Parts: sequence; C-alpha cells; structure tokens
Amino acid sequence: MNYLLTLMFDGSYFHGWQTQKNAYSVQENLEDAIEKLFGERVRVQGCSRTDAGVHARSFKANFSTQKEMPCETVISGLNFFLHEAVSVQTCVTVPDAFNARFDCASKEYEYVFYVGRERNPFYKNRASHVKHALDVPLMDREAKCFLGTHDFSAFCAAGSSVLSNVRTVTEAEVTARGDLVVFRVRADGFLYNMVRIMAGTLLYISEGKIPPGEIPAILSSKDRTLAGKTAPPEGLYLNQVFYKEGSL
Amino acid sequence: MNYLLTLMFDGSYFHGWQTQKNAYSVQENLEDAIEKLFGERVRVQGCSRTDAGVHARSFKANFSTQKEMPCETVISGLNFFLHEAVSVQTCVTVPDAFNARFDCASKEYEYVFYVGRERNPFYKNRASHVKHALDVPLMDREAKCFLGTHDFSAFCAAGSSVLSNVRTVTEAEVTARGDLVVFRVRADGFLYNMVRIMAGTLLYISEGKIPPGEIPAILSSKDRTLAGKTAPPEGLYLNQVFYKEGSL
Repeated sequence: MNYLLTLMFDGSYFHGWQTQKNAYSVQENLEDAIEKLFGERVRVQGCSRTDAGVHARSFKANFSTQKEMPCETVISGLNFFLHEAVSVQTCVTVPDAFNARFDCASKEYEYVFYVGRERNPFYKNRASHVKHALDVPLMDREAKCFLGTHDFSAFCAAGSSVLSNVRTVTEAEVTARGDLVVFRVRADGFLYNMVRIMAGTLLYISEGKIPPGEIPAILSSKDRTLAGKTAPPEGLYLNQVFYKEGSL
Repeated sequence: MNYLLTLMFDGSYFHGWQTQKNAYSVQENLEDAIEKLFGERVRVQGCSRTDAGVHARSFKANFSTQKEMPCETVISGLNFFLHEAVSVQTCVTVPDAFNARFDCASKEYEYVFYVGRERNPFYKNRASHVKHALDVPLMDREAKCFLGTHDFSAFCAAGSSVLSNVRTVTEAEVTARGDLVVFRVRADGFLYNMVRIMAGTLLYISEGKIPPGEIPAILSSKDRTLAGKTAPPEGLYLNQVFYKEGSL
C-alpha cells in the first residue's frame, strides 16, 4: 500500500528534511515513527529537500508498506510517535507508481519578514527580523520580474548539481500582513536556496542596496554575486505542493 | 531614575513572571540583565504575576536605579543581555512614585484556542488545542454575561488570599481568527486563574457540558466547582495594561 502524507513541521527542531549522518532530520523522525507503527523499516520519499531551520505548512511524502492500515489509524498512530514539532495532517492511499517528488507539478513557498524595531519572541525561529520599514509596493513590483521562464543561475547557491537551471515562476507577490511582510512564490521547481536568494534580493532592493529594475539584468548575467544575500532559513515556509493531473 | 518597561515574552521558556526558588522566572532574568547593564542589583516591580507558560505581548514593569542612562540605551542594552524569549519593546522614565502594579487601572488578556483535528506544530506552547469546532457566536453571547461588577469567587482558583473577589469586567468577546478562536477580556483586576477558568467555562458551554445561560447562576453561587475546568496556561496572553490618569 502506497500512502501519501501531508506533514506540517517547525523546522527549527530539525536539521532539514533529508536523512544525514550526525543530525536528526524530519525524514528520520518519520521513518522511526512508521517503524514503530507498522513494524517495518521503510524509506520515505519527500517532495523536496529542505534546509535546517526551514518550515513546512504542507509537506508531502509517500511510503509503501506490506501491512495495510486504515488512513485514520496511520494519522493518529504517527502523530502519537512523531516529535511534537511535526504532525501528519492528512493521509490518503495513492497508486503504486505515485512518487511525491517526481510527480510534483509545482510548489509554493512563502518567505516571511518580521518588521519591528526590537525582536519579537513570538517570531523567534519563525521569521526573519528586519528592523526598518520595508517598501512593500516596490518589493511586489520587483517580485513580478521573476514571473515567466528564466535561467535562475544567479539565484542558485554554489555547489548545486542539476542539469538545467531553467525554471518557470507562475506566481510572485509581496504583501504586508500586520507586522509581517510576506513574499509568496510558485514555480514548477526551485534551485538550491532559490527562494532565500530571491527574498534577500528583494530586501536589498527595498534597502537601496540594489537599484529597482535590476532583476532582469541579474537573471541574464547568471552571476550569483549580483543578487542579494541568501535570506536566513527561519523565514522560509513550504506552503503547498501541486501534483500532475492523473498522478494521484 | 524610575524606568517603566514594556516587555514581550514567550512564557513557555520560564516559570512565570515572579522570582521563586529553584525555577527561572522572567523577573529574575530581567534583574540579572539590569545588573549587567547598570552594575546595580535592583528589584523590579511587575504589573502582575503570571503563571508558568503564560505569555505577554505587553507586560509592564518598573525599576529605580542610582545610575542614569538614556532610554534608547536601556532598551538595546537589556535586549542584549535578556534571554531570546523576552524583549523590551519600550522604555520611558516615570515619576518616582509610579508603581507598575498599584497604579494599574485595568488589564486586557486574550485566551487563544487552536481548532484543528491534528496538532499544529506552529501553535505548540502558544495556544490551547481543541479538536472539534467551537460555537463562536454562542461563546461570544455567553462571554457578555461576565460584563459588569460581580463577585468572581466561582472563577478563582483555591488558595488565593485577596481581600475581595469583586471585580469589574468592561470588555468581553469571543471571535474567530482563521483557525484560532480568541476570548478577549478586560477588567480592573483579575483573581488567580480567573481568565483561564472563564475560558474553560466558555469551552464547556460550547461543548454542551454546561448549558447556555448558566453563567449568572455560577457567579451567584460563588462555587468554583460549578464553573468549567481551568484552561491550560499556553493559551493565555497578557495583551495590554492601562494606568490611572495622572500616574504616568
């Protein structure tokens, strides 16, 4: 039976999604919980990697087991065994061939800035703190420059090893929500650190460190050094994952 | 110089406001920070006690020092030395006679329920989790029964030793905010655990464990056992403190 889970996690408790040596990941915590519930050690397929400190409101992962169990039992059983900073929100059975990573059509991320003179303990590890007001209309106009199909090499951390750096961004906006400023972006795929470099570039534009109107030239240059700093992980949330028609 | 601070704190990191043996409090953390900044050990006067796990968006506290320092320096210096889960939002100098507790005219609290089938890691320690939908219009109507001047003995934890249990509630409402349900209440003073017992009673009414219309009878009875359970501390926020005219 192939189960597809929707997970929510506070990334500040983990060293990212992906299992690795000498650090506890969400994936390992989930595989441990599945082993306790099903009595089988299985490999879970996540929809993407996430860095240490990055959050998810709706992360998708699938796994196959020999034993069958009602989805309601999978939800309550896994939530019993999982770390408090992770929870299973939904569970459905999917076709055997379904793969949470390879059947993904697009993903939506949010990058959250907290704007306030002094730190806010309630946003500790949950947002990136900015002390001065941000120019939200400017950031929103500039974010629209990411729309469309581009080579995003300038917005990709060094050390990435994908075949193509071309991605298609279908939604990009910056909005104010009380004392938060949120950059929301949807694309068919994201390069390593892409959203955090986009967010850092929009911040630099608001702060006057990069002039408005530069994003097309930065994209064309494919030069990482022309974009802004990589914004810190605690502001990043994986918000939604969309799958190809017919895959589910 | 008598300084008045506005503090924000995530109560899940502390054993309440008040200094006590064998447990670290916000007050102790603040007095330690003041000692590091001013080189003097002083006693801080908080606007009220708070229980372990209870939060504050705007807690008021004052202290007097021999040394004078600009308020901007007090803010940045204390924020440097304080635990990350506390922050000073504002600092002003006040008349020598001002006392953050005794000059208080009224306070506003919020009690926050998170409504969701499964736990939400982002509300861990920040809201009280309720698995089933709440009847918000009913809870709001019932909350209005707290308005006015009443003896709140039925809404006071045992072991309290105040002279009078009469308090005046001036605002009380229950509203939905996305997946949160918030009970907001303002009064000239609160008895021990009063807001948490009020919140627990409104929850019981929504769940049908106490019939609607019972609050006046519970108030008249002065019998703690007739009210609902004390709701857990993680849902409670001290929101605002109001001072007597002319005291500041």
